[in-house]
Amino acid sequence: MLTQIMLTEIELELKNQVSRLDKPQTKNYFEMLTYHLGWSGEGAGPAAGGKRIRPLLVLLTLAAAGDSGTWKSGLPAAAAVELIHNFSLVHDDIQDHSPKRRGRNTVWVNWGIPQAINAGDGLFILSNLAMLDLHKVFPAETVMRAADTLQNTCLDLTRGQYLDMSYEKRVDLGMEDYWPMVTGKTAALLSGCCALGAILASADEHVVDAYRSFGHYLGLAFQVQDDILGIWGNEAMTGKSTASDLVEGKKSLPVLAGLEKKGNFAERWKKGPILQEEVEEIARELAAEGIYSYANDIAIQLTDLALNNLKAADPAGEAGIELMNLTNQLTGRNS
Amino acid sequence: MLTQIMLTEIELELKNQVSRLDKPQTKNYFEMLTYHLGWSGEGAGPAAGGKRIRPLLVLLTLAAAGDSGTWKSGLPAAAAVELIHNFSLVHDDIQDHSPKRRGRNTVWVNWGIPQAINAGDGLFILSNLAMLDLHKVFPAETVMRAADTLQNTCLDLTRGQYLDMSYEKRVDLGMEDYWPMVTGKTAALLSGCCALGAILASADEHVVDAYRSFGHYLGLAFQVQDDILGIWGNEAMTGKSTASDLVEGKKSLPVLAGLEKKGNFAERWKKGPILQEEVEEIARELAAEGIYSYANDIAIQLTDLALNNLKAADPAGEAGIELMNLTNQLTGRNS
Repeated sequence: MLTQIMLTEIELELKNQVSRLDKPQTKNYFEMLTYHLGWSGEGAGPAAGGKRIRPLLVLLTLAAAGDSGTWKSGLPAAAAVELIHNFSLVHDDIQDHSPKRRGRNTVWVNWGIPQAINAGDGLFILSNLAMLDLHKVFPAETVMRAADTLQNTCLDLTRGQYLDMSYEKRVDLGMEDYWPMVTGKTAALLSGCCALGAILASADEHVVDAYRSFGHYLGLAFQVQDDILGIWGNEAMTGKSTASDLVEGKKSLPVLAGLEKKGNFAERWKKGPILQEEVEEIARELAAEGIYSYANDIAIQLTDLALNNLKAADPAGEAGIELMNLTNQLTGRNS
Repeated sequence: MLTQIMLTEIELELKNQVSRLDKPQTKNYFEMLTYHLGWSGEGAGPAAGGKRIRPLLVLLTLAAAGDSGTWKSGLPAAAAVELIHNFSLVHDDIQDHSPKRRGRNTVWVNWGIPQAINAGDGLFILSNLAMLDLHKVFPAETVMRAADTLQNTCLDLTRGQYLDMSYEKRVDLGMEDYWPMVTGKTAALLSGCCALGAILASADEHVVDAYRSFGHYLGLAFQVQDDILGIWGNEAMTGKSTASDLVEGKKSLPVLAGLEKKGNFAERWKKGPILQEEVEEIARELAAEGIYSYANDIAIQLTDLALNNLKAADPAGEAGIELMNLTNQLTGRNS
């Protein structure tokens, strides 16, 4: 299957890009990165590295928008977006004070905050160098356009991160505060990945725009779905403990929608942190206030928007089918 | 004077580049950056922004290696290196737990560590976007070569940072550990700035190499001089309190050289942190062991190497003279 072949190649290219740091004097610095990427240390293995969704989106878009045989030329860009994703995860784990990621200690837990900041910085620089590697195959003009798209994506990412952190202390948030945050934190990079693939495929401007919008709505739909699972999901499905989002006080879509309702949920929320033993009842209350079906409707609408934009982009061949499958999988829709 | 004109233009270009983040929803994020760069908040003013040595090196090299009238075209690159320098300072202040920079609160003190990490990330992304702006004037091929030089410089910077932090807990350090650290932490970026200017001037490969070496030795000479002032300097000259490096336990060149001597200084150092009241006596002891003249000799040799490489690059016009003046000024040599 195309996706499987791509995933194998992505892993090889990632290792190739990260090997720039494999120098005798900075062995331990290199190891922080290979640990985080799931290749070394305790608990290393495929599950420790994540699903590599973003590089897959780059390559599938490139294959679906261009000559299906040339997706391998986009591997440095695929590695670049995965390195950006992981740079943001390493810094995010420090910012959120998260001790675990994918069941393993986070980088800052193992090596301390100062070294973890530096490890994140290193991942970002490796991403920039990976993008420049595209020039081995693509004209300089194309590489610069791709790099411009990606850097603007990164700026949006830090904007979303800023909003997310600034919300922590705020009690006056409503639904209008949700979209700018998740647009930056989740949708920007997925959108950037799809635009990147289409740019490398030399697609027409309107096709690049359609793929960009596809990624944007895919990102939003995925986030809303993730927010729903964070309150009403179960551990077996998500790998997270049931409804941990409520205990963590995460300002997810159901929570912000519930606060706007100004009902029993909003009243309870304002009284202070939610305890594990209250979670089931509060989740039930939130559903009774209509928030579960409200959030579900939004997820369905966003998934439709993603699929409509994908159709408008007219993706070709097996890659096109895989993009549709991936959308259904990420948004929890049965195909 | 050319340098003054350049400094004015650098400040305008920096403001132009950073204005990308001046959006209503992320006002406070933008303000963290303008605060750090010395433009806003308590204590704002020219002294709060630093000396802008790095962008000056880019522009002076560009003017000295190429057509002296075209240095303005390199302004986005000049802004890019200053943004990189400041990205590293914002993260460095968190890593070192430094409460003050240039007499003002550091970003993490004002906005907390999570937001400061993000602010540093933002500065780096703005630097990448600034580099892409070069394409308005330079061919894509030249921009890519310049970006490649700069990203490799950044990787060296994080290597130096890694070494510096990893040295904190080590007690077995010698002089051989000094050079890789300061090569990354200080010399890499100055070297990269000079190479960048020469690349943008379309200089021949051997001229680019000469400017790169000039920046490298300039960086090392500057660092050794800074280390000397950190132990035997005075507050009026450096803006730092006398010999604060000893109290901070900084592994500077005189300290590592003193440890290798295995004399009275080394014995005292191993007993634990040095107190403010001991500083004068210990600095005198270190000089008596020959370390002051040893460090001074090294600084002189490195400055000579810098000037020899500058001569080999054959810099033209007023910019060439300014490069020499800047070297003498940074290395404490009277011209």
